[in-house]
Amino acid sequence: MEETFVPFRGIKNDLKGRILCYKQDWTSGFKAGIRILAPTTYIFFASAIPVISFGEQLERNTDGTLTAVQTLASTALCGIVHAILGGQPLLILGVAEPTVLMYTFLYDFAKDRKDLGQRLFLAWAGWVCVWTALLLFLLAILGACSIINRFTRLAGELFGLLIAMLFMQQAIRGLVEEFGVPHQREGINQIAHESSWLFGNGMFALVLSFGLLFTALRSRKARSWRYGTGCLRGFIADYGVPLMVLMWTAVSYIPANNVPRGIPRRLFSPNPWSPGAYTNWTVIKDMLNVPLIYIIGAFIPATMIAVLYYFDHSVASQLAQQKEFNLRRPSSYHYDLLLLGLLTILCGLIGIPPSNGVIPQSPMHTKSLATLKHQLLRNKLVSSARKSIQKNLNLSQLYRNMQEAYDQMQTPLSHQMPPSLGLKELKESTIQLASSHGYIDAPVDEVVFDVDKDVDDLLPVEVKEQRLSNLLQAMLVVACVAAMPLLKKIPTSVLWGYFAFMAIESLPGNQFWERILYLFTAPSRRYKVLEEQHAANIEIVPFKTVVKFTLFQTAYLLLCFGLTWIPIAGVLFPLLIMLLIPIRQYFLPKFFKGAHLQDLDAAAYEDMPAIPFNFLFEDSNIEATNFNTNGGEILDGIITRSRGEIRITQSPKTLSSTPTPSSDIIPANGNTSKHTQPSSN
Amino acid sequence: MEETFVPFRGIKNDLKGRILCYKQDWTSGFKAGIRILAPTTYIFFASAIPVISFGEQLERNTDGTLTAVQTLASTALCGIVHAILGGQPLLILGVAEPTVLMYTFLYDFAKDRKDLGQRLFLAWAGWVCVWTALLLFLLAILGACSIINRFTRLAGELFGLLIAMLFMQQAIRGLVEEFGVPHQREGINQIAHESSWLFGNGMFALVLSFGLLFTALRSRKARSWRYGTGCLRGFIADYGVPLMVLMWTAVSYIPANNVPRGIPRRLFSPNPWSPGAYTNWTVIKDMLNVPLIYIIGAFIPATMIAVLYYFDHSVASQLAQQKEFNLRRPSSYHYDLLLLGLLTILCGLIGIPPSNGVIPQSPMHTKSLATLKHQLLRNKLVSSARKSIQKNLNLSQLYRNMQEAYDQMQTPLSHQMPPSLGLKELKESTIQLASSHGYIDAPVDEVVFDVDKDVDDLLPVEVKEQRLSNLLQAMLVVACVAAMPLLKKIPTSVLWGYFAFMAIESLPGNQFWERILYLFTAPSRRYKVLEEQHAANIEIVPFKTVVKFTLFQTAYLLLCFGLTWIPIAGVLFPLLIMLLIPIRQYFLPKFFKGAHLQDLDAAAYEDMPAIPFNFLFEDSNIEATNFNTNGGEILDGIITRSRGEIRITQSPKTLSSTPTPSSDIIPANGNTSKHTQPSSN
Repeated sequence: MEETFVPFRGIKNDLKGRILCYKQDWTSGFKAGIRILAPTTYIFFASAIPVISFGEQLERNTDGTLTAVQTLASTALCGIVHAILGGQPLLILGVAEPTVLMYTFLYDFAKDRKDLGQRLFLAWAGWVCVWTALLLFLLAILGACSIINRFTRLAGELFGLLIAMLFMQQAIRGLVEEFGVPHQREGINQIAHESSWLFGNGMFALVLSFGLLFTALRSRKARSWRYGTGCLRGFIADYGVPLMVLMWTAVSYIPANNVPRGIPRRLFSPNPWSPGAYTNWTVIKDMLNVPLIYIIGAFIPATMIAVLYYFDHSVASQLAQQKEFNLRRPSSYHYDLLLLGLLTILCGLIGIPPSNGVIPQSPMHTKSLATLKHQLLRNKLVSSARKSIQKNLNLSQLYRNMQEAYDQMQTPLSHQMPPSLGLKELKESTIQLASSHGYIDAPVDEVVFDVDKDVDDLLPVEVKEQRLSNLLQAMLVVACVAAMPLLKKIPTSVLWGYFAFMAIESLPGNQFWERILYLFTAPSRRYKVLEEQHAANIEIVPFKTVVKFTLFQTAYLLLCFGLTWIPIAGVLFPLLIMLLIPIRQYFLPKFFKGAHLQDLDAAAYEDMPAIPFNFLFEDSNIEATNFNTNGGEILDGIITRSRGEIRITQSPKTLSSTPTPSSDIIPANGNTSKHTQPSSN
Repeated sequence: MEETFVPFRGIKNDLKGRILCYKQDWTSGFKAGIRILAPTTYIFFASAIPVISFGEQLERNTDGTLTAVQTLASTALCGIVHAILGGQPLLILGVAEPTVLMYTFLYDFAKDRKDLGQRLFLAWAGWVCVWTALLLFLLAILGACSIINRFTRLAGELFGLLIAMLFMQQAIRGLVEEFGVPHQREGINQIAHESSWLFGNGMFALVLSFGLLFTALRSRKARSWRYGTGCLRGFIADYGVPLMVLMWTAVSYIPANNVPRGIPRRLFSPNPWSPGAYTNWTVIKDMLNVPLIYIIGAFIPATMIAVLYYFDHSVASQLAQQKEFNLRRPSSYHYDLLLLGLLTILCGLIGIPPSNGVIPQSPMHTKSLATLKHQLLRNKLVSSARKSIQKNLNLSQLYRNMQEAYDQMQTPLSHQMPPSLGLKELKESTIQLASSHGYIDAPVDEVVFDVDKDVDDLLPVEVKEQRLSNLLQAMLVVACVAAMPLLKKIPTSVLWGYFAFMAIESLPGNQFWERILYLFTAPSRRYKVLEEQHAANIEIVPFKTVVKFTLFQTAYLLLCFGLTWIPIAGVLFPLLIMLLIPIRQYFLPKFFKGAHLQDLDAAAYEDMPAIPFNFLFEDSNIEATNFNTNGGEILDGIITRSRGEIRITQSPKTLSSTPTPSSDIIPANGNTSKHTQPSSN
């Protein structure tokens, strides 16, 4: 994307690009059929559960002014609008932790002012939203998103880790609170507040939350389990997390006969149809009652929220569209920001906290769709290959049939573009290999061509780009509001476990996190890191530089995290994140060599050194050594790298056609050189 | 061992063999210095913790007649005598779960008899011990242990799994009981029996026991962690389990200020110096008060206990001396059984339950000593190799120096025997390999000879055979009796976690267990099992036969387990285990082909088909492919196979000197054939 600041040009380009594929965004969604439900429910849970507990958090922080009903309503409303009218349908909208922080800051400020107070808080927040929206419009129109390339890995990953820390903090805080007396609520059994029951409640919470965390983490890896059929394993991997929430909710009812009501504590929220829940919807009437000075003053927090949304929305979108996902359809940063502005006004006027693009849910969404597309393609290719083998065709005929099947699976649009990692070259290299063994004209049997494995080798990562999963998950959030009585059966401790799960799930693939781990790895064990999937830079850049860069980033992260703890000044934390952009561009080059910076944190605005094509495959060699694994797992391996470069694992076959000059490898130390040798040759 | 039943011959042979190395049994122990403490504490905990909780169990089952003081006293007394006078010093003695079951059966029988009752229970049990001892003398003198080869894997592994099931059953039962009202004990706060505190106690117990189980399992694998120095990792792996018991005991005190006394529940035992604890020691006075009919009747349970001890003691000894440990000193089955008879009388007369050789502690003991010997040898060889490299010597000079260092480490006794897996052949093959690359006369550098790795490849498994660790651990058990007030600080829930840990630790290497898992492995994932360490038989024997054999074994196991549940007839369960020996010899050959039986359960009394020497290495090839790992881990890999054939992992270097005819491999199915190809070539 070129950096132009001609007004409206960015929005126009975005619209032009997305309108072309708008119809396909729907048709390809419907074509996926029932399978679309796996990513839908996965994302629905990842989106709704935090939103519910953010609602709980807000309810506590705003003395009940805002509750889970409002956060869910905002998520549902914005989600549906964005799924239908938004530019990038992979982007998931929701009420996020930073919004909760911001609204808490706003409330803390408002409640102590005599002429504002709790009564006019939502009206004032409405004004903040209006200002925020105006600023977002301005940013969208002026093309601010065209500098998206300056949002380098440095800022994006730091922000990602900050979010993970906030999630983890909430999990720990929530668990500690389970041991204390809960906030005053009506209708709760007073027996449950006796110290003995508080202790029991806290211990039960530990069991439930660690149980959920542990089983959820395990279930995501179900595809590589040894037991159970492939079908069952796939089902657990796809639906395991919601299943575990259900299971631990069921477990929480086991001691129901022996404990008083209120143990374990469960979600608290008014039903949307209870009398008190209507007050916020008519907040627009009060907005003119806000004193003028506060209307104008609302501009100050609005700038912060605008900066936050601009950054968060764009980065979430960017992470959902990483190069490694091989997306075929265009991005839409400017138009989406404009739409976000509209949604923010709308939310402000009806007194609900606005939603924005969320991390880590947005990249999770793309990843779950990558699995889907992969499965569809895989089934088609496997059945085509099996048929060819039954017909006693030879290898080149088999590949011709597979190419046809592959082409059938492509949407017309993807045809227009050259396949990025096509079947073609791979086919040729395999045929070459086979012919050297004299297999080429013989009928293929399953020994020469291992259908399951070889098909996986042929498959690039592909994402089913469509609007349906986003729309459906948003509609499920609507259903959530209606199903509030059911949701209230979920113990809060299960939520805390889920928060910890989300924090941990967002870590793999974050190079910043991986570098922190690398620093703590014993020197004698570093080769283990190098043997597995890892960022290329830790091999290329001198260790000392990696340490210096990572320590700087860690210090900055702690600074940001510390800022969120300061009562009202904490509102400034988005500034600190945005500040990273000039720091990266002007300050860091003074302390780090350009080439090292480029390796650690590639920025498009720097001169990129010419990287040979083979470069990318260098350490895939290592990964490819023991390649007797199942397709689902490979994909898991690829897509669990939520952000950061996704490595396409190559089979030895493929590599044989692209011989890698191993002299290209710059070993970090003597030990490494040994392990980077492609042992498959 | 030949099967001769000439009276006293077995005992004489045993004594002759062990007297020769008796002095060295002590000197080599002292030579190890401070390092002997790692296996000592490991075994002490593995031995003392179950004994303490068996004491708790007995206390409950015998209404307080027997307590942890008595079980600890028996373990300490028998342990010290066996360490000093016993034949095989690797064998660990202790009060075992079957003894607890037996004593429970005895008590249940005695308490309801008017002329016996609780008062004369111990005196009657004393008579049972006398009869048992007489039977054991008879068995030892008549050379019953010479049929040890008929105790095949079938019976041994079934018994091992039965013990694991009993441990796990105790863990689960213990945890469930934490939720209920505890047995009546004086001095316990009645508040702790309120239903709210019972709930809190149960939940706390869940946290503590799962916490211990999880961290203990993790800590045993510390050697392969990536973080922390090698020293720290080694320390955690060696002492992790006791450390975790300490840590979780400390954790159990965290909520001390908010909970009443008695939460969590802690070990209960009278102090050995409290007034009530003396009654049993003078039981000999009461023995003549037992009615004659019961003295004679005591013969019936005595036969069961004699069968049990004969089997348990011999199998524990056998498992501690598996061929794969490369022990250098002779076995002593007959003499040890004789000594066990003496100890049984002694225990009976002072009213404590007798000890016998325990599973899984005995094989655990040998394994922990294997690590020790390995470390000593390794340090010596590594420093010798480093010196040679610094002096710029060439490869053959380096190996000469290493051979010298290796020889220095051997005790005079081991010199008399040919080294089973010597440095010699390995050296030659490595030199051959190096010379083919032209390295032979060049000074060695660390790239050609990776000191850490290559030294590990050269090291066979070796066990530090000595008496010191056994004596020290038994003396620590004495200290335990004295330190009862400290032990009472351990929460019972930590014990339940430890029971589960022991059960799980005993599983790897049990081929029966591995076959059960294999049956449940999805067909498409079986190759994964085949890629890792596994018993050769699952590749060689047709899958259907494996299924049939395993199902038979499982049914039999459940039968044995079920029998232990039957109130008094349960006393017969050792018979069921012994019955497996004729079943294996006469019954099973009618349903399974001889060759298959031989593969699944090698018995020395069957005609063994000539197996080529290379045969054994066939699937080590697979394991050897990716061999970039650390010595400690390799050893862990080898020694965590607690029973069952231990595979010596070979480096590709070694294998190159022993080419394997891959045509020998009989693939179980098409898929397998692919993966059994030695991929290192």
